[in-house]
Parts: sequence; C-alpha cells; structure tokens
Amino acid sequence: MGVLVVGTVTLDTVETPSKRVEDVLGGSGVYAAVAASFFGNIVQLVGVVGADFPHAYTDFLQTRGIDLQGLERVKDGKSFRWGGRYAEDFNVRDTLFTELNVIEDFQPILPETYKDTPYLFLANNSPVLQLSIIEQATNPKLIVCDTMDFWINEQREALEALLARVDVLILNDSEARLLTGDANLVRAAEAILRYGPERVIVKKGEHGAISITESSYFNAPAYPLAQVTDPTGAGDSFAGGMMGYLASVGGTSEAAIRSAMVYGAVVASFNIEDFSVNRQKRVALAEISARYQELQEAARF
Amino acid sequence: MGVLVVGTVTLDTVETPSKRVEDVLGGSGVYAAVAASFFGNIVQLVGVVGADFPHAYTDFLQTRGIDLQGLERVKDGKSFRWGGRYAEDFNVRDTLFTELNVIEDFQPILPETYKDTPYLFLANNSPVLQLSIIEQATNPKLIVCDTMDFWINEQREALEALLARVDVLILNDSEARLLTGDANLVRAAEAILRYGPERVIVKKGEHGAISITESSYFNAPAYPLAQVTDPTGAGDSFAGGMMGYLASVGGTSEAAIRSAMVYGAVVASFNIEDFSVNRQKRVALAEISARYQELQEAARF
Repeated sequence: MGVLVVGTVTLDTVETPSKRVEDVLGGSGVYAAVAASFFGNIVQLVGVVGADFPHAYTDFLQTRGIDLQGLERVKDGKSFRWGGRYAEDFNVRDTLFTELNVIEDFQPILPETYKDTPYLFLANNSPVLQLSIIEQATNPKLIVCDTMDFWINEQREALEALLARVDVLILNDSEARLLTGDANLVRAAEAILRYGPERVIVKKGEHGAISITESSYFNAPAYPLAQVTDPTGAGDSFAGGMMGYLASVGGTSEAAIRSAMVYGAVVASFNIEDFSVNRQKRVALAEISARYQELQEAARF
Repeated sequence: MGVLVVGTVTLDTVETPSKRVEDVLGGSGVYAAVAASFFGNIVQLVGVVGADFPHAYTDFLQTRGIDLQGLERVKDGKSFRWGGRYAEDFNVRDTLFTELNVIEDFQPILPETYKDTPYLFLANNSPVLQLSIIEQATNPKLIVCDTMDFWINEQREALEALLARVDVLILNDSEARLLTGDANLVRAAEAILRYGPERVIVKKGEHGAISITESSYFNAPAYPLAQVTDPTGAGDSFAGGMMGYLASVGGTSEAAIRSAMVYGAVVASFNIEDFSVNRQKRVALAEISARYQELQEAARF
C-alpha cells in the first residue's frame, strides 16, 4: 500500500565536533520518505522547495521510487534552510539559523493520485497545515502526526483540533511533558490519549521509544550504536520507517505497529551513521533485517 | 543459594513535593537485602549501625529472613544519616546532609557462615572495603559491585583494582560516562569491560537498564509507573532483586541474568511506590510475577 509523507524538504548545514556539511539534503519529509522507501511501497512526498534546490537531490529521491508530484518548486523562491550544531555528546543541539523562505506561504494541495493513499505521515508542521491534509485525504487507514514545542506553545488550539483527528501522535519525551505539563511520561501519554489519538508514541532517542494505548504498553529498544555521526532526522527516519513497514504489510494492529516501531528504530540507526541521507543510500534490506533480529535478541528474556 | 549483601544501613530523611519523612529505614544494604529476600534465599547483610538504631528496624529485617550476624552495632556510635530532597519531576535530587558517623571506621569482618556464600553484592562503598570483602570470600560464584562518582573521582586506583576482581559492575549511566570519559554508553560499557568485569550493567532509571558483555547486549525495560512516591533505593532494589533471583535459580548464564534484571526492575518499581521499604512490606510474590509478565508482554515484538 502507499504512504503519503507531508514534511519539509530542506538544505541543511550541520556542524558536529568532527565535521561540517553545508546545504545537504534534509528535512522531515525527506528523512521520512527515504526511510519509508525501504519497504517496497509507493511513497508520495508533499513539500515545497525553491528554484535553488539541486536537481541532484530530487533525482536521488526519484531513484528511491519516491513520487514527487506533490513536491512544489517555487520558481522565484528560495528553499527552506536550517543550520544546527551538535555538542560533543550529541545530546545537545543548537539551532544556528532557520530560514523558512518558500515554506512560509505553503498551502499544500494533494495531487489526485495522492488523495486515497491509506498511510499518512504528517511530519512536524503547523497543525493547521496538517489538518488541511487530513481534510483532503479520502481514504485514510492510519493517520500519524508529529509535532514540536513551537506548535505546542504557539498554536495550542489548532493542535488540539488536530489531535482529535489523528490515530497516532508521535513526539519526543520533552514534547510530551510540555504538551501535558506532566513530568511522568506514563501519565503524560495517558493525558494525550484523552485529546483523541488512539495511540501515543514517545521517542526517547538513545533510550528507544514507548507506545501507549488505552490497553497496551510497548517498550521499543533503540539500536545500540557505538558511533554516532549526525543524529539529524533520526526521529523522522523512525516514523518513516515505521510507516513504510506498516504499509508493506497493510497493518494497523498492535503487533504490526510493534514490529514497525522496531523497523523504524533500525532505519533511524542507519540514518545517524552519516550526514544527510548518505548512509541510507548504502543500506541493503539484508542489513535492516539483521539489525531487526539483533534487537529481537536484545529484547528477549 | 545464599546472597551476601554488603552495604549501608542508614536512617534517612527524605523530602518530596508532597511529604517529608524522618529517620526512616534506608541504605544501600537494606534496599538490596530486602529486595533479595523475595526469592526464598538466605540473605546475609553486612553493615554497621549505631546505638541509636531502632530495634524495630532490625526486627523488621529479621522478619524478612535476613541474617543480621554481619550487622555490627557500635555501642557508643551514631548511625549513618542521610537526607535528600526531590524536585517535582523526581529526576533531580539534592543531598541535604550526609553524616557518616559509624561508617567512617567500619572494617567489616565476615562471620564464618558468610564466607562461603556464592552470590556477593557489594553495594556502593569504598573500593578498598569492597575488595576486602572479596578477599574474605572463599566460594564466590558471582561477584557484583556498584560504585558512584565519589569513588570514581577520589579512589580511581583502588576502583580499578576492584574492577579486575568482579564479575559484574553495575552503575548509573552518568557514572559510566564519568568512569570512561565517553558520552556514548555503548562505547563506555565496552571500555569498562576492559578493566576486568565480564559484564557491565548500566542503570538508566525510568529508561530501564542495559547489560553488555563481549558477546551480548540486553535491553531491560523499566516498569512503567504512573505514580512515583520516592525513588530512593531504586538502584539497590534493582541489584538486590537481581541477586535474589539469580541465587534462587543458582544461575549466572546470560538467560538467567536477563530474567534476573527484569525481576530487579519489578522489585525496584514497587520500592519507589512508597517511602523507605514500606511498599516492599506489602508486596506479594504474585504481584511480582504479574509485573514480570507485564514487562514480558511490553517487550514482545
């Protein structure tokens, strides 16, 4: 089945203690779409870039089988640019700059062939924009959305309206605490369920992720990596990998979502082994299966 | 089989946002011994208290079947007292006071009946003292020790000598980073293995614990608790529960240690539901089994 990804498509500048890269391919939509593309589905990407966006980047996305009909190119516009710097331990990230450019006025209209796609991933974005996508979708089987502190603080009401319409909210632990004002993650997740989603997935970085519904609790391990190169996009790779796996099995059950979260964790682990989506370019399906099996072994008792 | 616990036996004053308790039963040795006592083994406790130590507390420990031959009572001494305060989210703890008292000159000598006990848990203590226990043990099957930032900073050499003599080092994530100077936990754990232990167990609080050997990686979930009352002693309850289970099955295999870590996590989860060891007094074995099964279900994919 198909996966629709709505997110940013950006030119990123990333500094780590060992290296700096400039204007590399990035953005939540890119990380999620590339991650979803490993599982043999149609992946459709909705986003916007400027005239300056390198054709080499869109060519690459197309070699991954990603449908770019929904990627608007604004002729007189500049692409969204983001710059960030990581500290030695990669747990602290400073945003150096954010140039919204073409993204500021983006009002996505779904191409006809995107409207009945069953798996929707709405990466972190304005909740108003996320809601407008849901309203254009005619056949959603699973709607998953992400959010962040900015929208929690600035567009609370729209975010609550969005939460009433999604099946799964996926967010970081700090965002779950911010959204609910509760430091206890179990209580925070339970409080989020009351806004409407059937499931809350809380991402905890190197500590994995948890999934909570009214009747289930799942603890997904992170893949243990001795070498981190660039964590940018890990959360979107996790979500995209999860969606790609779910679409490939056509599932939304608890069991399918658990496997999907672990596949997401595996794809995210590859993502952070190199800048941009460079590591993803070299990942074979057999490597994904191998790490999945390692995590199964790591969780067994 | 028997478990020998060497640790502190203290009078604790604990403040949380909702309550304050004074001079309650605490200490690493107490938390670990009580946790180990759930699994039907002989548990022997080595520690020291002053003349002021309430008989009600030692009576309670004895009702748990804990052998107190190794608990010295210094007639003209005062018990170790510790005071701490937790912030709203329980992730920040301030130590209000530490009065070492009788612990300062404590040189434990193992009673004859303790010497050939196979399972040794050396709770956080001076590495010199921990080493002296190992030298008195005649039949150790598994030696597990804990440590903390103070010893890492102040008695590095003695600590390294200790690490060459233990089977398992158990410590917090921040301590693993401090000991190795490496922010990456996987690399930090691998570096610790080179000091001698066959296994490193890194405790990560609400994120569970990981176990690393040269050839294995295990991700133990924490039990998800919506209500935390007092986290004091959680780490020692985890270790003690783990040792108690291992002694009850007579095991040291990877499979046994994995189950033991999850039993440890379960016992720790009860511990933090009340002050001191109050919740432990009311825990039935059936409750421990039920939470163990819940964690099995939570880790399944």
